Amino acid sequence: MKYGIVLFPAKKLQDLANSYRKRYDPHYALIPPHLTLKTPFEASDEEVKAISKELRSVANKLSPIKLEVQKISSFSPVNNVIYLKVEPNDELMELHTELHSGSLDSKPEYSFVPHITIGQKLSDAEMADVLGQLKMQDNHHIELVDRFHLLYQLDNGAWTVYETFILEKGEL
Amino acid sequence: MKYGIVLFPAKKLQDLANSYRKRYDPHYALIPPHLTLKTPFEASDEEVKAISKELRSVANKLSPIKLEVQKISSFSPVNNVIYLKVEPNDELMELHTELHSGSLDSKPEYSFVPHITIGQKLSDAEMADVLGQLKMQDNHHIELVDRFHLLYQLDNGAWTVYETFILEKGEL
Repeated sequence: MKYGIVLFPAKKLQDLANSYRKRYDPHYALIPPHLTLKTPFEASDEEVKAISKELRSVANKLSPIKLEVQKISSFSPVNNVIYLKVEPNDELMELHTELHSGSLDSKPEYSFVPHITIGQKLSDAEMADVLGQLKMQDNHHIELVDRFHLLYQLDNGAWTVYETFILEKGEL
Repeated sequence: MKYGIVLFPAKKLQDLANSYRKRYDPHYALIPPHLTLKTPFEASDEEVKAISKELRSVANKLSPIKLEVQKISSFSPVNNVIYLKVEPNDELMELHTELHSGSLDSKPEYSFVPHITIGQKLSDAEMADVLGQLKMQDNHHIELVDRFHLLYQLDNGAWTVYETFILEKGEL
């Protein structure tokens, strides 16, 4: 089964992201707006139990993470993806590192550029047009995220949450 | 914000349900296939923290629940809803009761008929036709569900998971 690990921002930012995704992201109906922490990987039912245990211990030793968006950016020309750029900070980078070490060890596909996708698979012309429009808007946003989620993918491409992990260093 | 509480069956049953929902359920893209344990209710950010704490304590004292589907049924003529009928059992009824008592107290809208919706808002003719076809098929399924989820609704009607609660009586 295919699993992935994401952060969901709070409702407010999800609603903002969806206002763009509805038009520009073919994955709109498959998953709520999210920041990918670990790209899709295969795991058996047995493996996922061990992974889940490992994620609980990661979550127990980390604190909530500041999620700050200052601007809209894109991976163009490599990929016609438009996203809310999430400012990197130590806590976020540490969580990402933890999710790629120990028994969760795997080489990330790309270097980690924290982001929330709002458009993808656009043509070059669409891309330039949309990006131009969006860059004029104020999309500044800041919040504290205290949880991340392990999801699995259904046959239709949609994702269901398997488990939530709460960042609660010092709260036990 | 609007919250709800659901069980997600395992991937296999979700895939089966989605094969019908794709055609017959306008909520197909808003939430994965699920069994509703508590219908949508309003809660503030503060209230949801207390609710989440209460749900953790409910989950800690309950065991995993057998989820058995034997047949397809409908709420017709009251409602043109087609669903996988989930056989009631003590554990499932107890979880439902717990989610409607104490600080979670609220009168359920209907008496609790555990089900996984696979079609809704059908015309009478569609309804009879689809139900006739589906009833010929073998949809028997049995599994053990060890978790439930608290979700919140976005502006576009889609649901995001807030937190997962693991039924782990005796496992702590």
